[in-house]
Amino acid sequence: MKTNCLSLILRGFLLLLILSQNASAQTKPRARDLGIPFEGTPGPLNAITDVKGVEVGHTTLISDANQQKPVRTGVTAILPRGKNSKDQVFAGWFSLNGNGEMTGTTWVEESGFLEGPVTITNTHSVGVVRDAVIAWRVKHGLMFQPWALPVVAETYDGWLNDINGFHVKPEHVFAALDNAKSGPVAEGNAGGGTGMICHGFKGGIGTSSRKLDEKSGGYVVGVLAQCNHGGRQQLRIAGVPVGLELTDEVLQRDDVGSIIVVVATDAPLLPHQLKRLARRVSMGLARNGSTSGNGSGDIFIAFSTANPEGAKPEGIAKLDMLPNDRMNPLFAATIQATEEAIINAMIGAETMAGVDNHKVMAIPHKPLKQVLKKYNRLLERSNK
Amino acid sequence: MKTNCLSLILRGFLLLLILSQNASAQTKPRARDLGIPFEGTPGPLNAITDVKGVEVGHTTLISDANQQKPVRTGVTAILPRGKNSKDQVFAGWFSLNGNGEMTGTTWVEESGFLEGPVTITNTHSVGVVRDAVIAWRVKHGLMFQPWALPVVAETYDGWLNDINGFHVKPEHVFAALDNAKSGPVAEGNAGGGTGMICHGFKGGIGTSSRKLDEKSGGYVVGVLAQCNHGGRQQLRIAGVPVGLELTDEVLQRDDVGSIIVVVATDAPLLPHQLKRLARRVSMGLARNGSTSGNGSGDIFIAFSTANPEGAKPEGIAKLDMLPNDRMNPLFAATIQATEEAIINAMIGAETMAGVDNHKVMAIPHKPLKQVLKKYNRLLERSNK
Amino acid sequence: MKTNCLSLILRGFLLLLILSQNASAQTKPRARDLGIPFEGTPGPLNAITDVKGVEVGHTTLISDANQQKPVRTGVTAILPRGKNSKDQVFAGWFSLNGNGEMTGTTWVEESGFLEGPVTITNTHSVGVVRDAVIAWRVKHGLMFQPWALPVVAETYDGWLNDINGFHVKPEHVFAALDNAKSGPVAEGNAGGGTGMICHGFKGGIGTSSRKLDEKSGGYVVGVLAQCNHGGRQQLRIAGVPVGLELTDEVLQRDDVGSIIVVVATDAPLLPHQLKRLARRVSMGLARNGSTSGNGSGDIFIAFSTANPEGAKPEGIAKLDMLPNDRMNPLFAATIQATEEAIINAMIGAETMAGVDNHKVMAIPHKPLKQVLKKYNRLLERSNK
Amino acid sequence: MKTNCLSLILRGFLLLLILSQNASAQTKPRARDLGIPFEGTPGPLNAITDVKGVEVGHTTLISDANQQKPVRTGVTAILPRGKNSKDQVFAGWFSLNGNGEMTGTTWVEESGFLEGPVTITNTHSVGVVRDAVIAWRVKHGLMFQPWALPVVAETYDGWLNDINGFHVKPEHVFAALDNAKSGPVAEGNAGGGTGMICHGFKGGIGTSSRKLDEKSGGYVVGVLAQCNHGGRQQLRIAGVPVGLELTDEVLQRDDVGSIIVVVATDAPLLPHQLKRLARRVSMGLARNGSTSGNGSGDIFIAFSTANPEGAKPEGIAKLDMLPNDRMNPLFAATIQATEEAIINAMIGAETMAGVDNHKVMAIPHKPLKQVLKKYNRLLERSNK
Repeated sequence: MKTNCLSLILRGFLLLLILSQNASAQTKPRARDLGIPFEGTPGPLNAITDVKGVEVGHTTLISDANQQKPVRTGVTAILPRGKNSKDQVFAGWFSLNGNGEMTGTTWVEESGFLEGPVTITNTHSVGVVRDAVIAWRVKHGLMFQPWALPVVAETYDGWLNDINGFHVKPEHVFAALDNAKSGPVAEGNAGGGTGMICHGFKGGIGTSSRKLDEKSGGYVVGVLAQCNHGGRQQLRIAGVPVGLELTDEVLQRDDVGSIIVVVATDAPLLPHQLKRLARRVSMGLARNGSTSGNGSGDIFIAFSTANPEGAKPEGIAKLDMLPNDRMNPLFAATIQATEEAIINAMIGAETMAGVDNHKVMAIPHKPLKQVLKKYNRLLERSNK
Repeated sequence: MKTNCLSLILRGFLLLLILSQNASAQTKPRARDLGIPFEGTPGPLNAITDVKGVEVGHTTLISDANQQKPVRTGVTAILPRGKNSKDQVFAGWFSLNGNGEMTGTTWVEESGFLEGPVTITNTHSVGVVRDAVIAWRVKHGLMFQPWALPVVAETYDGWLNDINGFHVKPEHVFAALDNAKSGPVAEGNAGGGTGMICHGFKGGIGTSSRKLDEKSGGYVVGVLAQCNHGGRQQLRIAGVPVGLELTDEVLQRDDVGSIIVVVATDAPLLPHQLKRLARRVSMGLARNGSTSGNGSGDIFIAFSTANPEGAKPEGIAKLDMLPNDRMNPLFAATIQATEEAIINAMIGAETMAGVDNHKVMAIPHKPLKQVLKKYNRLLERSNK
Repeated sequence: MKTNCLSLILRGFLLLLILSQNASAQTKPRARDLGIPFEGTPGPLNAITDVKGVEVGHTTLISDANQQKPVRTGVTAILPRGKNSKDQVFAGWFSLNGNGEMTGTTWVEESGFLEGPVTITNTHSVGVVRDAVIAWRVKHGLMFQPWALPVVAETYDGWLNDINGFHVKPEHVFAALDNAKSGPVAEGNAGGGTGMICHGFKGGIGTSSRKLDEKSGGYVVGVLAQCNHGGRQQLRIAGVPVGLELTDEVLQRDDVGSIIVVVATDAPLLPHQLKRLARRVSMGLARNGSTSGNGSGDIFIAFSTANPEGAKPEGIAKLDMLPNDRMNPLFAATIQATEEAIINAMIGAETMAGVDNHKVMAIPHKPLKQVLKKYNRLLERSNK
Repeated sequence: MKTNCLSLILRGFLLLLILSQNASAQTKPRARDLGIPFEGTPGPLNAITDVKGVEVGHTTLISDANQQKPVRTGVTAILPRGKNSKDQVFAGWFSLNGNGEMTGTTWVEESGFLEGPVTITNTHSVGVVRDAVIAWRVKHGLMFQPWALPVVAETYDGWLNDINGFHVKPEHVFAALDNAKSGPVAEGNAGGGTGMICHGFKGGIGTSSRKLDEKSGGYVVGVLAQCNHGGRQQLRIAGVPVGLELTDEVLQRDDVGSIIVVVATDAPLLPHQLKRLARRVSMGLARNGSTSGNGSGDIFIAFSTANPEGAKPEGIAKLDMLPNDRMNPLFAATIQATEEAIINAMIGAETMAGVDNHKVMAIPHKPLKQVLKKYNRLLERSNK
């Protein structure tokens, strides 16, 4: 945590290495491009940004300036109603396995509100990100109360990243927030997901969405996941036991990973209903074979961009609520989008080397398609 | 649980002994009549029924037909919007110490709604009361879903009542529901509270309310408590260590009691906000000295009669919500009304003898006033 | 709820119709007999009774004495350390979707203990079962405290059963408890599961177990599920989208069902660790395609038969605890056994007709095998 | 968050101003020295450090170097088994009102363990403290897992402190940890409590303990509170309505404060039992009149120093457990020690001026004694 002039220069160097991930976002195939079958109908971007107003920003830190201490980390910011708005949205959260951190949740639970952005980073940088979010909100006049209790989550990238070098700095957080935007979201080795590992392959950021039919209200559910969880053997894709078939270069590490999932929707749900969505995320993980290991911080938060009037501090707020009886399509959408976002994270990731000569292979696309074909689960529409 | 013709006759006999508690409700002094100082402003009845629409019914079972097995028990029903309405109201609950039962809470937690009445009885009659509430709702066409998950709570009256005689029968439940009404509520040895003990004195049912000033919205908070908790030594009234002063006839039983508290309000609160009220009940108990012993089932539920549209199963419900920033007066009201309802239960109760020659003394009013005077806490307005 | 001599006679008639389910338990094929692939190694019985000491009893009520009101219901009892022991075991519970009832959970949560049996019945008979369990424990001297707070759970069988006829009586509960035993467990239309529906096929009781290898401690995890949940389309078996392939006779009812799961283990887990197991049950459901619909009461409880000394009320209890770091195999076992128990419930069930001329088809074994074969997931070892 | 050479110099200056609070700890009167009556028997220090092994360290930051931006803040560290030990202790937590932060609680809840120290600071410095605790644990080889999830809590000192100046730096955290020790604990304007306000008087750090009699096991319960909560009017001391009597210089701010309470014990309690203690803290607050306002972050954690073997990652841990039936004296002790620790924080604090010319008065000792005397609650043993 020492700070001197050298470190300042080094930081500048790191910033130069922040990759413009978004530029390449559309050129890589995504899971369904490969012909993997998923249930439900995605939105136009098949991303959390299909929920109107949601903006996402990544700061990706990759550096070999110090060869002994490669940097493979970053920050991802999700702003529910965009960075120019006072974001206060109804929210609910759930911890499937709490070997991880999501700050700010006692106030989410108590108030029913998420104030400000959700940010995701590595385990040992949660603190710097948290205080930087406060500083950014103070600077931009985005405080609701005189104090702030930001929601910051993490997964552990110490297998590839020099995590105890504490390389994430406040300016990286500001950059992720300032550069957040709607549109496509970079997946794989991007932002907080840069150094992550998923089911023994390279993991990272993945996203997906579902659009309900008009009869169900036409709502959108978007999911963004930072995937660092699961063992190789467990991996199921579209129900196929892929982990038992793709057995090359299995990592010699335990199931020490984690997954953070953010669910966004424009359906008018109250806090206790959003908690119901958050709980459903577990079932999306399970479809891909996860058993949520002891070392895993599997923590989920769901928010709704509806009910902008909910945030007013005075008078009486006028709200809309979707009846519980109409929630089933949202449950299915959450599970389906989670299932797909995780696979998108793996498909979008690229092989990476890091600390201690560790190397993590991206899931190989062709062999994966062969496995799916073996189990009669490869869609014909695949043309990549 | 055996049922035969004799038992049917016996039941008829018991029914004859159901006391018309309400008749005498207004003739007994209540806590503040004695000059005990309380904070805040009560509603006109100083009862849960100050919340418009709330109805309360008691069935009180007292019988010495079998001298070896005296019956000292009953049922109390609280109907949020009255017995002729399809009651579905926002609700939240909290367990301070869970050595007790409140059925139906998983659905309250999940849905945010309380469907139908809250009933309170003795520990070993929760089942019969639960199924009888369903039968009553089926009969009267008051079901929301094809199934029902009634909220039934209890405290243990086995010190005075032949609890393993299972004397509460479905017809007693129907009677409590059918006879529920607005207006004054019988306190002390009434309904589910008939055989209860509180801080080593005779306990039972107590109620109180607070009316907020217009600046705070003019809302009403009403509390009904079935009091069976606390040790003698712990007892504080208006901050005065009464339990250390009134040391006659201390019961030789441990702190095995419990307290069920129902909080009603007309403030437009969402489920997660009602849970905040439920949690505040703990602080009302604490003011009277309780430490919530291991043997205690201290379980609380809060509901709001606002937002009748919340219950609709289709379309979008239009709701009102009181901002969190405006909740402080409701927190104080809940604590104050709980504090007073407990003392009302004791003041309203009368000395009772029961099984095994057990006898529990009502708190003596004159000595109590002397103690309060000793600590300069007796109000002058006392004229009884 | 009326009781007269006629009803007494009718009850006797019903009792005559209680099927001896266990007799046929071994003659029907189970899921893995059909060649369905599952992960992990089951115990010798592949049942919850593989956990030493656990006993299971069913009372099955099937009657057409009143043709307008067919009876299709029952009670299932699970006794952690057998019916002749004072059962008090460490336990934890979890509600995935709380549109259901499991009584007694506030005390499980507070104390860390499950006292007495777990019983499962239909939604509208939870009360009678609860009080009957108390009566049975009082009669047999199995009370720990002067009061009891039994754990009773339910699913809704009103599609086939005359649920508002309240046909479960105390004697049926006593029979399930008195007849509980170790050994094979009847599946499908048995006990509390008699009238249940699962993924649009006939459901009911299913069970399965996993035996850990010696390196992992050699512990056993057993699961018993009362399955009444899920839509047809959602159904996945061994990852295969069976619900999209077997589309005959789909029920015209919504996802209104529920599932109760009881997890038993001999691993020395503390209450908070058992809650971790209970939470993993969700992931077993998800593997079979469930999305845990709004109408579902998906409630799970896990207990450990280890640490018999934990129950002592005095002195200091000496306990064993499995470190958290060793729990991963138990997580996997719980998920795997849940996944298989649900399929066992369906495979073990038989087509049933009930109220309102409703009829629910059992899943057809041969077409199911053909679907599995189509997706290259039928095991060769199948010889039935 | 900018860092340059000037700031480094400024930090050095701040460090010079870190007061040696402990030196004066014994010279000030504490609550019971004034003759305030409390229940129960304290340990020799009447402090959390009466629990063997517990060490406490404060870093207090008071500076007027920049007159526009006075610094009134700090860090307090509580180390369950001392700073030279790998601290991993059973723990449980509870949020009475979650408008605050306590990081690390999902892992406490999941694992049952608290790993490493608990630290308390101001709201906007939680992040820097969190990451610094990790850095300190990495440096000293005190990591259990490859990652750490520190427990860091806060209250808001922005009424007196330049909170958005982010004056707490990693070296201040290291100092609090390195200087932690057993023995007396500085109260009032010390450590994290430096700039805090309690019931409208100057607040801060307070501590107290209770020693159970030998019949109850002779265990010790120690409490440390960082007090920043409550309105003036609400204040009750020993049951006396002090807030209605001492009405000078009432602050014109809402109930925006918070309280963090740490409970330590040597009683062998399991995690779910420690949660029971944490929940009892609410009742200590209530005795002093708090209603836990909407703006309050009232978050409590309890840990046990017993069962050092609980932390082992392999084999089977052998544990002791105090039966639930023996917990009542611990409940009472927790409530009593909380009640006294809060009053100790106020009695130990001194009048302070800070930002925006705000000034907060310490509770005046003589007038307080007069009020207690008025209500016949001043103990004769008072000689100060």
